[in-house]
Parts: sequence; C-alpha cells; structure tokens
Amino acid sequence: MRTSKYLVSTLKETPNDAEVVSHQLMLRAGMIRKLASGLYTWLPTGLRVLRKVENIVREEINSAGAVETLMPVVQPFELWEETGRSEKMGAELLRFTDRHSRPFVLSPTAEEVITSLVRNEVSSYKQLPINLYQIQTKFRDERRPRFGVMRAREFCMMDAYSFDIDKAGLKESYAAMHDAYCKAFDRMGLDYRPVLADTGAIGGSGSHEFHVLAESGEDLIAFSSVSDYAANIEKAEALAPTEATPAATQEMTEVDTPNAKTIAELVEQFELPIEKTVKTLFVKASDEVDAEIIGLIIRGDHELNEVKAENLPQVATPLEMASDEQIRAIIGAGPGSLGPVNLQLPFIVDRSAAVISDFSAGANIDHKHFFGINWGRDVELGQVEDLRNVVEGDPSPCGQGVIQLKRGIEVGHIFQLGTNYSEKMNCSVLGPDGKSAILEMGCYGIGVSRVVASAIEQNHDDNGIIWPAAIAPFQVAIVPMNMHKSERVKEAAEKLYADLTAQGIEVLFDDRKERPGVMFKDIELIGIPHTVVVGDRSMDNGHFEYKNRRDGEKVPVAMENIVPHIQQLLK
Amino acid sequence: MRTSKYLVSTLKETPNDAEVVSHQLMLRAGMIRKLASGLYTWLPTGLRVLRKVENIVREEINSAGAVETLMPVVQPFELWEETGRSEKMGAELLRFTDRHSRPFVLSPTAEEVITSLVRNEVSSYKQLPINLYQIQTKFRDERRPRFGVMRAREFCMMDAYSFDIDKAGLKESYAAMHDAYCKAFDRMGLDYRPVLADTGAIGGSGSHEFHVLAESGEDLIAFSSVSDYAANIEKAEALAPTEATPAATQEMTEVDTPNAKTIAELVEQFELPIEKTVKTLFVKASDEVDAEIIGLIIRGDHELNEVKAENLPQVATPLEMASDEQIRAIIGAGPGSLGPVNLQLPFIVDRSAAVISDFSAGANIDHKHFFGINWGRDVELGQVEDLRNVVEGDPSPCGQGVIQLKRGIEVGHIFQLGTNYSEKMNCSVLGPDGKSAILEMGCYGIGVSRVVASAIEQNHDDNGIIWPAAIAPFQVAIVPMNMHKSERVKEAAEKLYADLTAQGIEVLFDDRKERPGVMFKDIELIGIPHTVVVGDRSMDNGHFEYKNRRDGEKVPVAMENIVPHIQQLLK
Repeated sequence: MRTSKYLVSTLKETPNDAEVVSHQLMLRAGMIRKLASGLYTWLPTGLRVLRKVENIVREEINSAGAVETLMPVVQPFELWEETGRSEKMGAELLRFTDRHSRPFVLSPTAEEVITSLVRNEVSSYKQLPINLYQIQTKFRDERRPRFGVMRAREFCMMDAYSFDIDKAGLKESYAAMHDAYCKAFDRMGLDYRPVLADTGAIGGSGSHEFHVLAESGEDLIAFSSVSDYAANIEKAEALAPTEATPAATQEMTEVDTPNAKTIAELVEQFELPIEKTVKTLFVKASDEVDAEIIGLIIRGDHELNEVKAENLPQVATPLEMASDEQIRAIIGAGPGSLGPVNLQLPFIVDRSAAVISDFSAGANIDHKHFFGINWGRDVELGQVEDLRNVVEGDPSPCGQGVIQLKRGIEVGHIFQLGTNYSEKMNCSVLGPDGKSAILEMGCYGIGVSRVVASAIEQNHDDNGIIWPAAIAPFQVAIVPMNMHKSERVKEAAEKLYADLTAQGIEVLFDDRKERPGVMFKDIELIGIPHTVVVGDRSMDNGHFEYKNRRDGEKVPVAMENIVPHIQQLLK
Repeated sequence: MRTSKYLVSTLKETPNDAEVVSHQLMLRAGMIRKLASGLYTWLPTGLRVLRKVENIVREEINSAGAVETLMPVVQPFELWEETGRSEKMGAELLRFTDRHSRPFVLSPTAEEVITSLVRNEVSSYKQLPINLYQIQTKFRDERRPRFGVMRAREFCMMDAYSFDIDKAGLKESYAAMHDAYCKAFDRMGLDYRPVLADTGAIGGSGSHEFHVLAESGEDLIAFSSVSDYAANIEKAEALAPTEATPAATQEMTEVDTPNAKTIAELVEQFELPIEKTVKTLFVKASDEVDAEIIGLIIRGDHELNEVKAENLPQVATPLEMASDEQIRAIIGAGPGSLGPVNLQLPFIVDRSAAVISDFSAGANIDHKHFFGINWGRDVELGQVEDLRNVVEGDPSPCGQGVIQLKRGIEVGHIFQLGTNYSEKMNCSVLGPDGKSAILEMGCYGIGVSRVVASAIEQNHDDNGIIWPAAIAPFQVAIVPMNMHKSERVKEAAEKLYADLTAQGIEVLFDDRKERPGVMFKDIELIGIPHTVVVGDRSMDNGHFEYKNRRDGEKVPVAMENIVPHIQQLLK
C-alpha cells in the first residue's frame, strides 16, 4: 500500500476526550474516528488490525469445530420476550418499530435467535453436537460509552453457541472453546489469562472470562502466587481464616463518637486497629427473609463483594443498597452508627469478621459506638458467609500460595448456560432413548473490536503503538529519504516495494512528499514492526537501514540481503 | 467439512412463500432462513457463498485502488438532514431514538458519513484522489420485502465513494471502478451487462447499472442487436422516427364510444389500428407550468416511461399520476375519454405519437372519441419529447441495429455524483491554485447478498443449484456409499478427504448415516461442482466415480489419480 493512495490520517495532538492510552493512540494513529457517542468509523489502518484479529478468531473457532453463520443485526422483539430478557437488559437493549409499527431490537447478542433457529433445524441427537457462531456487528446502548472502541455502543463481536444432548457433551464443547480462545490469544501475542468468572443470575454451571492484563483494565483479577489459579475478584473466594478467634480481653463499652461517621474517622480519632472494626451494610432482602432489609457485616478494612452478596438466597436480585432514609426509619440511626449489637434485623457476617475479638462497631444510636465487642458474649454470631473481596496476601482458594491482584480487560467470556434458554424456548430434540430432550447450551463471546484496543494498552511506548506481529496493520514500512529528489532512492524504494509485495508481505510504502521526520513519526505512531529506510547515504555503503519498532534497534543490511532479512524476521 | 459437524438443513419441499427460484433454492439448500419479514439468517452454506462473493469484490475493488473502511450501521439522523435526504428517503430510512432520545437511522447507504469523514480528514488536493469503501450491513425498510435476499430489508452491500479534485479525476475513478466491477462479475462466472442508467433526481453526469441477466429480473434492459449498447429501459432513448408524417386522408369525426373505456376496447370495437390511437395521461405539473396537471400523449401501443417523464422540467418530482377525481374536476370527463383536441391544459407529445396521422383519441367528453385527428389541422402539436419505453425492433439509439429486450437483476450501480453531496456538506480541499475546491464525488455499490441470489437465478436445474466454480460453497463433495457398514469405504473416503483437504481444496464430506440417495439429492441441491463417489463396487475395479454437477457427466477415475484429476478440474 502506498501512503499516497491511502488515508494515513495521523494526528499530532492527543484529542482531549480520550482518557485511556488505546483510545488516544487509535485516534492519533488514524485507526478510528468518532461518528457519534459510542459510534466509531474504522479507518483503513484500524480495519486492517480488526480484520486480522477477526481472522485469527475465525480460524481457531473453526478448528474447534464451530460453524460460521450470519444473523441479522435487527431482531424481532418478541424473541426477547420469550426468554424474559427484554426486561432484564433494560435500556441497553435498543428497541424501535419498523414502518408497520412492529417492534424490533438491535442485537446485543443472539441467544434467542440461535435457539429459535436450532429448535427449527435440529430434530435428532444424531445432528449433535453443533456449535454455531457469527462475527457480526452488535449494539448495546450503554448509558456512558467510553474509552473509544473499548466500551462503544456499536462493536464487532464473535458470538458462538453450542448445543449438546447432555452435560458431558456441553463440558466437551466448552473445553474445546476454552482451548480455541487460548490459541487465538496466544497467536495474537497478548498477555492474557482465562479466569474463573461468576455465573451470577443467568445461572449455569461454569464460566471463564479471558482478560488481557493491563493497568487500565476495569476488572481486578486474583491470581495465586504459586499455581495457575486466576479468578475475577467477583468470583475469587476469600477462605475462612484457620486461626481460632482470640479470647475476649475487653469489656464492651458504649462510647460517644460525635465526629466519627466513617470507619476511617473512627480509627483515626480513637486510635483503633482497623482490622478490629466492622462495618454493617444494609441491602434489600429477598422474599426468604422476614424483613425489608438485611445487614451484611464485614471488617472495616475489607470491601463488600457485591456479586457474592447478590448470590445469597437472603439477598434480593439485583443487589440494592438500602437508602439512608430507609435505614433511619427502621433502625432509628444513620449509616455512620450501625452495628450488630442490639440490632433488631437479620444479618450475615463475613468469614473474616466472624473471627475477631474486642472489636468496635456502631451502636445503632446516632453518634455512639460500642468498643470491645465479642461475638457470643455481646451478640449472637449467626450465619457466616464469604462476603468480601479478596485482598493481596490472602491465601489462594486453590490451596497454594497467596493472592496477588492485577487489572485486566475482559476480551472474552465462555459460559455453560445449561438449559436456561433451551427450556424457556423449548429447544429439544429426539434423544437416543426416543424421548424428547432439552438441549444443553454453551455460549461464547469475544469482543473483537475490544481486543484491538486492549492489545494497544499492552503494547505501546511514548512514540505510539508497538503491534504484536500477528495483528500489525502492515508487516513492513518502507521510508524513502527524499525520494522526490533522488532518482536512485526512488528506484530502490520502488523495487524494494515490488520485491517485498511479491513475497506476499504487507508493506506500507511511504511515498508522500513529506520530510523524513514526519514519516518516521507516523510509522512509529502506527506501530509497524519493521521499517526499512532507503537513503542515499546508506546506499553509498551498499546497504539499507533496518529499524525494529519494539526494541528501536537499527542495523544496516546489505541491499541484496534485505528481502531475505525481512523474511527471516517474519518467520 | 464433515456433514456430521455441519448444519446441512436441506428441505425436500419448496416453501410456499418463496416465489422466485433463487429464494426457493436458497431455502431448500439450507443457505438462508427467514427470521422475520425481510430479515434472513445466513446458514453455513449460504454464508460460504456470500463470503466468496464478498472476497472477490474486495480483491477487485482493492486492485482498483480503493481502500477499505468500516462505518457504523447506526448513523446520526442529523447528517441526513444536512443533505436533505432524510425526507427524500421516506419510510425506507428506518429512524429511531437512543436511550437519551437522540435520533438515529439504520444505514441504507453512507454518502453522508463518508463525506463528513473526508471533509474532516482530507485538506489538500495532494491527498487525492481517494476512494474509500466498506462491505457492511445495510438496512432499508422496504414496504414489501420479497424474493428472499433479493429484496430483503437487511442486506450486505459493498459501497465505495471516490473523491477527486476535478471532473477529469472523477471520470478516471469511475472508469477504474467500472473495470473492477467487470472483473469481479467475470470472476464470479456471471452473465451480466453494464448498462446505461438514468441519473434522475440525484443529478450527476453519468451512471451505469450492472445487471445479471435472468428471466425473473425486475428490470428490462434494452440492447442493440449489433453493438455493445445496453441501457436500462428507464434510460434507453426512443429515437425520433425519421419518416415524414403521412398526409391526412380523413376528416375528424366525433364518435359515440359508450363501451370503450380503454384503448384495447376502442380498437376492438371499432377495428382501429392501435398504432393510430393515442392515450393521454395526466401527471402533476411542476411549478414551471401554469396548471395543476399536465397531459402526456403517447401512442396507444406504447408505454409511458416514468423516468423520462419525471426528468422533464414541466413535471413534478416525484412523478405523481393525477387522480380520476382531479381529472374529472378539471376536464369534466373521465380517464377513458381524454385526448388532445379541445384540451384546455398544456400537454407534451411523444416523438412517435407526433408523426402519426388520421388517429383517434378521447374527446374530453364522457363516452365520446374523435376519429381521424391530424396534428396541425385539428389540434396544435406543441412540444415533442421522448416519453415512451423503447420496444423490441426500435432502432438502437447507438445508431447500429435494433433494440432487443432482456430482463436483468441489478446487482451493481456506479454513479458520477459530481458535487451533489460535497457542496451541501461543504466537503472541500485546498486546490493546486491555493483556493478551496469542492470535491467531485463518485459512488459505487454492489449488492453482495443479491449477487448470491442472482447467480442462482442464472445457474440451476430441476435438481437444485449449479454453482459457478468461484463462488461454490464447497469445491468438491465426497459421497461414500454405506461407509458405516464398509470399513474399506470408510478408510478410502477418510483418506481422500484428508488428501484433498491437504491440497487446500474445500471439501464437503458427507459422513452422515444416510442412504446414498439422500446424500446425492442434498449434494445436487446444494450445487457442489464436483462429486467423488466412494463405493465398494467401483473400488473393486480400482476406481472412484467422479460426477460433474453441471453436465451430469459420470466418469470412473483410477483411485490413485483422483486427487490430480480434481486439481486439474479446479484449475
């Protein structure tokens, strides 16, 4: 490709509204342009990367035995009513009516469409297993689209759906996709981890997310310092402490704490160890509980894990924190003064909070706390559960090593759905026993456009993007020095371009009438792995200058050896 | 691909709601399934063909120097207001609002988005010419979607947009795309024609449609019997007759015609030659005319060409026929009795109707006609224009041969837009003279999904589809006879599958437990060009049976020669 026939569209300045590096660099390198909030046009350079990611995903998913289809972006709303997801999705599911006032949605995913297809097309267990996928435009009407294509409204996603006659089959299909995902991300040269994920409200029996590790990631991943264990912090279990609860050494006393509305103020003003305090959070209770709200008690230095809380049968779904007014109306005190002692409401205690002694908590009276509380003596302990986020240094739930935390960007998700959708939509086949059997489903997604952004988060420097070889928009750049003045440079550059292209190598030939400095800056910004500089001075010595984007290394290469040299590097 | 891991989904019966052959066969061969009116899921077999068409288009458009981008399916409504197309498109432009009540549309095409992009990204003539395209989902909310993917609401289209500094550049860009289209359709093995098309209301200076010839086509194409001339009948000029008008031989007489409401009834009841009758049609007049409606007079045996009529400055756009009530209110007679004599309204006469003598027409009085009318003597001739569709036998407008008509399916359209959009959207660059210059645009479309259907219209027999080699879903089918009983057949079929696949050949290996008859029927229906039958009987004689889909030819091929035999056929 010649830059003169191409849309380079690089920007010198970092656009103001781009917060994360990938968004900044995708704009600056001329990969994307914003059309409207959360809507991006992929410029030629961006699209080349997107297609490479897409093709790697396609090849690996094909190898895993999945078969490609293409479903409409516009889906009938009635299918979403069949599964009840029309409500669950809320405003993210963009709805509209056609010219005949029939309701439709823009597809955010396709479980309903594919299940409807399979219930019509597949009638016998002999046609199973089958795994159907598509790589297609998706739309989610995010309230606050941000970070460019990382969280856009319209995006490109690979979504696959497996159908098996039984759970054993589902597990096999799932394992094959897990494997295909690893191969795909390996090929892309990304530092990623498959991590255990919560299966939450959708149910199902198993789920992994695939995270690209990057400091800008929105998710926290818990790793074992020793084993392969990795889980989204939502899912990572905080093990019950193995030490016994220390014996009580203090009497419980009521203390005036007029200026302590938070744990931080309490421990500061009274010089308390924070791990000997607890905070009591109130959330909406489920029907299982004979109260409007229920207390969740965790240590002052810990954070509530909302997913774990939501998964408790006593807690209403979706998780809803009680309002200050509601708490005051029921308990008679404000949020700064709550605690388990004398509480007339049910509560659940976190495993770590359950093994401390002589601790402090609110007295359920404004401006008052109890110090020196001990479970059993001052208040019944009751139900103990895992309620908190793990922290670095916690023992790993796998039994080996301790927890370490890293940030990740979720680029893929695989999910054993089981019969969740197939039951609601009556997707069944004739089983080997001659009876009708509801199918076991798995669903699998890769955010193709998000992969592009996350690869940049992981591969950049001050000068721009540094593409992993497999997903670079071009493999090689040719930068001729003053080609429009030197006929020798022009001839050599043109010949090199022809020779490399003839070898099937993807070359960006910068034939613009620009100063060398401008060209170098653009090529670095775009992040092309290998650059060949064609200039009179080095040609006087019989060589071209080769430059590596990642390590910045520059070496002279004899002119006659340049093609094999590049071929060697691309192997 | 093994059928056991694939979604074959063939149907024995022709679905009731499929009118045209391509729609019937795409359903029966398991290529598509209807999700809702005008919305189709592409099943694996259909998608394979779609992608082949897409890739051929991509390669040829790339070779023509166009650069691929990807624009959102969801576009801000305001861009469509900028060009005024929001109104022109009417209900086909599907509109909706997002969660923040901002208006958007589903993209039916992308002139606005691309022009907006280019006005931001391109600032100098030095960056020109540029031709940007995408292959992306489009949506048109057709009132009556029909014929499957031939006229669907959601479809796959290649749309390209060229930007040049001047008209000469535009003509070059246009010629390059014309050439690329021909190469693409040639490679697909289609019988197609580029035909002159009307540029109509959009304006612009030149346009070609690309039609696949097929009896089911919705368009009529006029060809010269001698030259390369081809034009959509909308555009094909009906030359002015060269013969002089015959002299009058009859007096004009008023005749009672109580039972003649149509030309057909008139000529039958009074034994008139139809080419000596005229019909007078009334359409809404433009502001240029000092009347509400204007008459268009054509010979009784001719048809009004609505596009030619609409292109007249005296006729309102879009063309609107006057209602019976309107005509009666103004003229005092009904549509069966209209004519030029004594007409108190302006009218325009077709070239052929202008050179007849002694002709008949309505008297503008119910149940009365004039016979023996002669221009000049009985009524002033006034303005003469080309108003009618050409008919077979007309002299070709190219000056060579006569007109022949064939039906075609429009699969592509190229258009010299000129400055139509760039002016409205202020898309200009700094020209070589240092002044701002409005860009000359071309736009170019190929209906990728419609190409698939039109290829079937042209390539099928009673047993199913007969794919041209370049767009067949698979190149070769392997049909093993009773593989599940004969270990020898199984081994040979598996080996053949492995050998062909290793050569990069796309094979459908029918490893289902089905009777051979079922497999043969499916393979023929799907239309795979080459089939190898692996059976015990032929293997006893040391050969496999090769079968050609198009000519039905069956030949034995020595087992050891089968791979080179196939390779030879695929060359």
